[in-house]
Amino acid sequence: MKALYFPRKDEVVAGDLPDPVAGEGEVVIAVRASGICHTDIDVMRANYGPSAFPVVPGHEYAGEVIEVGPGVVGLSIGDRVVVDPNIECGTCRACKRGWAHLCEHLGAYGVTVNGGFSEKSVVRASAVHLIGEMSYAMAALAEPMGCALNGFSPVADRLIDRALVIGAGPMGLLLGLALKVRGVAEVIMCDTDSARLDFARSHGLEALLAGTKGMTELRHGCDFAADATGSAAVAATLVDCVASGGAALFFGVCQQSARIEISPFDIFRRQLTLLGTHSLNHNIPTALETLRAIGPRVEGLITHRLPLEEVAATMAGHKPAGSLKIQWEA
Amino acid sequence: MKALYFPRKDEVVAGDLPDPVAGEGEVVIAVRASGICHTDIDVMRANYGPSAFPVVPGHEYAGEVIEVGPGVVGLSIGDRVVVDPNIECGTCRACKRGWAHLCEHLGAYGVTVNGGFSEKSVVRASAVHLIGEMSYAMAALAEPMGCALNGFSPVADRLIDRALVIGAGPMGLLLGLALKVRGVAEVIMCDTDSARLDFARSHGLEALLAGTKGMTELRHGCDFAADATGSAAVAATLVDCVASGGAALFFGVCQQSARIEISPFDIFRRQLTLLGTHSLNHNIPTALETLRAIGPRVEGLITHRLPLEEVAATMAGHKPAGSLKIQWEA
Amino acid sequence: MKALYFPRKDEVVAGDLPDPVAGEGEVVIAVRASGICHTDIDVMRANYGPSAFPVVPGHEYAGEVIEVGPGVVGLSIGDRVVVDPNIECGTCRACKRGWAHLCEHLGAYGVTVNGGFSEKSVVRASAVHLIGEMSYAMAALAEPMGCALNGFSPVADRLIDRALVIGAGPMGLLLGLALKVRGVAEVIMCDTDSARLDFARSHGLEALLAGTKGMTELRHGCDFAADATGSAAVAATLVDCVASGGAALFFGVCQQSARIEISPFDIFRRQLTLLGTHSLNHNIPTALETLRAIGPRVEGLITHRLPLEEVAATMAGHKPAGSLKIQWEA
Amino acid sequence: MKALYFPRKDEVVAGDLPDPVAGEGEVVIAVRASGICHTDIDVMRANYGPSAFPVVPGHEYAGEVIEVGPGVVGLSIGDRVVVDPNIECGTCRACKRGWAHLCEHLGAYGVTVNGGFSEKSVVRASAVHLIGEMSYAMAALAEPMGCALNGFSPVADRLIDRALVIGAGPMGLLLGLALKVRGVAEVIMCDTDSARLDFARSHGLEALLAGTKGMTELRHGCDFAADATGSAAVAATLVDCVASGGAALFFGVCQQSARIEISPFDIFRRQLTLLGTHSLNHNIPTALETLRAIGPRVEGLITHRLPLEEVAATMAGHKPAGSLKIQWEA
Repeated sequence: MKALYFPRKDEVVAGDLPDPVAGEGEVVIAVRASGICHTDIDVMRANYGPSAFPVVPGHEYAGEVIEVGPGVVGLSIGDRVVVDPNIECGTCRACKRGWAHLCEHLGAYGVTVNGGFSEKSVVRASAVHLIGEMSYAMAALAEPMGCALNGFSPVADRLIDRALVIGAGPMGLLLGLALKVRGVAEVIMCDTDSARLDFARSHGLEALLAGTKGMTELRHGCDFAADATGSAAVAATLVDCVASGGAALFFGVCQQSARIEISPFDIFRRQLTLLGTHSLNHNIPTALETLRAIGPRVEGLITHRLPLEEVAATMAGHKPAGSLKIQWEA
Repeated sequence: MKALYFPRKDEVVAGDLPDPVAGEGEVVIAVRASGICHTDIDVMRANYGPSAFPVVPGHEYAGEVIEVGPGVVGLSIGDRVVVDPNIECGTCRACKRGWAHLCEHLGAYGVTVNGGFSEKSVVRASAVHLIGEMSYAMAALAEPMGCALNGFSPVADRLIDRALVIGAGPMGLLLGLALKVRGVAEVIMCDTDSARLDFARSHGLEALLAGTKGMTELRHGCDFAADATGSAAVAATLVDCVASGGAALFFGVCQQSARIEISPFDIFRRQLTLLGTHSLNHNIPTALETLRAIGPRVEGLITHRLPLEEVAATMAGHKPAGSLKIQWEA
Repeated sequence: MKALYFPRKDEVVAGDLPDPVAGEGEVVIAVRASGICHTDIDVMRANYGPSAFPVVPGHEYAGEVIEVGPGVVGLSIGDRVVVDPNIECGTCRACKRGWAHLCEHLGAYGVTVNGGFSEKSVVRASAVHLIGEMSYAMAALAEPMGCALNGFSPVADRLIDRALVIGAGPMGLLLGLALKVRGVAEVIMCDTDSARLDFARSHGLEALLAGTKGMTELRHGCDFAADATGSAAVAATLVDCVASGGAALFFGVCQQSARIEISPFDIFRRQLTLLGTHSLNHNIPTALETLRAIGPRVEGLITHRLPLEEVAATMAGHKPAGSLKIQWEA
Repeated sequence: MKALYFPRKDEVVAGDLPDPVAGEGEVVIAVRASGICHTDIDVMRANYGPSAFPVVPGHEYAGEVIEVGPGVVGLSIGDRVVVDPNIECGTCRACKRGWAHLCEHLGAYGVTVNGGFSEKSVVRASAVHLIGEMSYAMAALAEPMGCALNGFSPVADRLIDRALVIGAGPMGLLLGLALKVRGVAEVIMCDTDSARLDFARSHGLEALLAGTKGMTELRHGCDFAADATGSAAVAATLVDCVASGGAALFFGVCQQSARIEISPFDIFRRQLTLLGTHSLNHNIPTALETLRAIGPRVEGLITHRLPLEEVAATMAGHKPAGSLKIQWEA
């Protein structure tokens, strides 16, 4: 089968690999849509935990079941599915609490074993979720949406009148749309890129150019504020944007060495919540629910649908200008 | 009636005041037990928001209903009750969210209107809660326990195997006992005062002398860690004590100007929650439930039961050595 | 001012009443939209608890603040608001639990005191909620939507793939749209009236003609099923429609004397939840959030916008054919 | 090894079986305590789903890890553990929602594969939970306690002043103690057996003889009421005992053919919740937390600690008089 893989650190190849076979409790799916995430680049560079070269990257993918292994119940050939990439050990302390994403031995399709950038992918039956009639491209957004929902989960039952998301890239926009669709009156996307802001505006979100006066007017005015840039300088501004009783989410990946200052008294007196997030945690079903609530317009986030060779070029550093989410459309 | 009051800033008097009368929707209670909190001192010093001198302090009190005003339903003379001191406006943004403690115009019995250090106290009928057969001394702990539960509420449904509370004063101990009684296997109280640690130990809590090797062994090992000292230097150590997926609570009152450093990446990658807390939010009923679960031994926290004159002396700076919670027993 | 009122049992008048004045803690609002509910008829017939004639009915209304009484903070003339009609005592057992709708002495605007079918209405400041730029007609749907959300609240955090709502009247449709907008893949509205089903279909809901084969195919197939007809015969079918782990909601008002049969073993073995609901419970803010998430199309439920005289005629029994929600548009 | 097993339907043997071996991802535990449940009898009689003879019964057991299979991380020889008996498929609709107990292909140790009434038991590593220093006898109560918590879970965040549990057998008492330890002021155990009521009283629970006047006085007076008898006649009385806003739980196993009558209007108007329950759902960690909160006195429920031969006799119908929980102590 055709596949994109990392034969070793810092190398990407679009070539041929043997077809996978469904073992006990596994299914093979024919991949139909598979999204690129910055984590793929980190895997290639061996920056993301224990990379296991050679490996087929891709952890955001959907497709059709074409083979059902022995012992699998409840799945049939032809089923349309999306993959939850996390492979948790099931026995560590985090797993026993139901926290797959914090598993001490966490593996993942596309990270530690072969993932979605190949024509066929073999996965455990328990890792796939039926998508009904949703398009494959939209279903392949369920994994990043699941990450957004996981980050948001501790405040999911709170009333939010105004939310601020700094960074209008694909992750920020998914978070913003998820907030909007649950009825948040005002979701403000903030960025330095006016094209991204135009996109946000066209999807019913407010848009605010970074560094303008509007930002200072948000002081203590947002029920929820998230950094989706990964800049510590931006992350440092979150707490000040949040209203009493509100929450700030570190959603972008900051430098490990970066530090920011906070005031314990301020957090105490205004009863704030500061949240971090990492990966997703069994969020695919609710992510599908959220994508359905947004509707097909969410596919507008997918600016490029590329053949496998161009996906390889993108990973090698030739990312198309003005892109949001890039998918391989098989 | 006999009462303790602050006639003006920095002055405390134990003297006589006119008896209060129950107006529309109000009751008068004969105070039976009333606890001292550091907030009382702040009120005296005009350090706690808008003090309204002259004022009777005391916001932790229980007693017996002795007069029922017009329009009050559901309360009778002889009812044994405890007071929720918060007086929220009911119309601001926070109130509309159900957040009494974050009310933009928050008043309180014992802060902006007369409170519990007098023989009789007039309060709105909606501010009192029936205590059944619980002792008045124990019921007067419901307000501080409510503050502990309010701080803890965002993580109340999480599984906690090991909790760390730094600072074994009355507030820290109430928090520690509340954790223990819900089944947390290991609740570690940390302090520099070995007498307080002995007390903790005698109540089934673990005790750890601050600055010892045991502390470093807790690194990334606590599901929940709280600062109950109000020292920013201590607050700065919390995040490091917390395990992946865990929560840190700023429960003590740090200096307003104090700042601590945090790593956004660490909060992101280990999916931590940082929490602040302030006052209580309709927590009296669950606080009574928690006190009942702990049982009468919680009264061990009340080390001194003083007459009104000695309460005045305590507020003036003559606090008894080795005290935990001090109450006026009427 | 012009007003519609019930001078005594079984009588409705559209006439003139003195203008109300804002007392301590109150505001006067100029009513802009006010919806008719079957409860209004019950109030007129003295069938709904303690009616207090004469009374202006109407508990679903929105308008503009035109007078602000003494002691009111946070509201100004010109504010656009909707009213939460419940007037709870604040002191009974239910109130102390935060259950306004179960208050033992529950009153309501439009039931025990004057409500929304008059040009001006005086209400406690704490009873109004800001609506931003939402239309008054849409905001006047917040009260019935609040009832839907209150009924739904115990299962609000559950994943629902398929929901069934039997009865496609205004309340059933509000419930159906609330489910749809949170991302439920399949919301099936069932009714005997094909015009109502067409309406449901045009709003993205599935439609099923009652008594057809499709109903039997739903057996054990719905994560959530609600009766919005008030027919006990229909209510009796709910449990059988619900899948293992699912919930059934008695949302319609059945006859008090009606009884249905259930199997305790079935509820036990399939871990079902049976829910009842009554009124709303501080749900206006989330109801506004839900209405925003649905968007302006929800106004399609308002089939008639009538002058006050025709509202009176409707209450007297001359209900327009084919109506869903009827509002007075001031 | 010595073991008790059902060679075929309606037959029980205490004899010898080959020692099990730990396969990939499995551990072998030396069983130290194993409780008898009525389900064991149902398995023997082939009344409990798909029995797979021959089979070793026992699904309530704790022991020590004595062999660790390949691929197991996080468990070592000597670890003290308890077993979660459920073996869910992981791929069906219920499993995808996180509902192990409703798995469409649910198996269980002691039901479909060999369980706890043998000296050694081989289980998946993901099925065991560390118990710290808790006694094995107490840890073997974690499974039935998990069932109680699972039934209780939908109302776990509610305030309960008074709870009624009808049926003071082991399951009813575990439920009652779980309620008591979270601070419910009044937990009333109701039974026809005065010896059981004495036991309840000695554990801090209220006791009420069935059929006495006290029962009628509870009408509409309990926040929570559970049937733990399995009698439909008893189950039919629950709703009437429950206060407005309260919940009724069908916890006992009624006859499949039994029906009871309910009033949809009553459930609607008083906003009641009716709950069923079945098995446990990943509740072992919180069950251990609850057992710790109750403390060692919960072992008082274990009235008999028998050798394997007498366990066999008990299953064959010779149950000791006056027994509550019976365990095999290895």
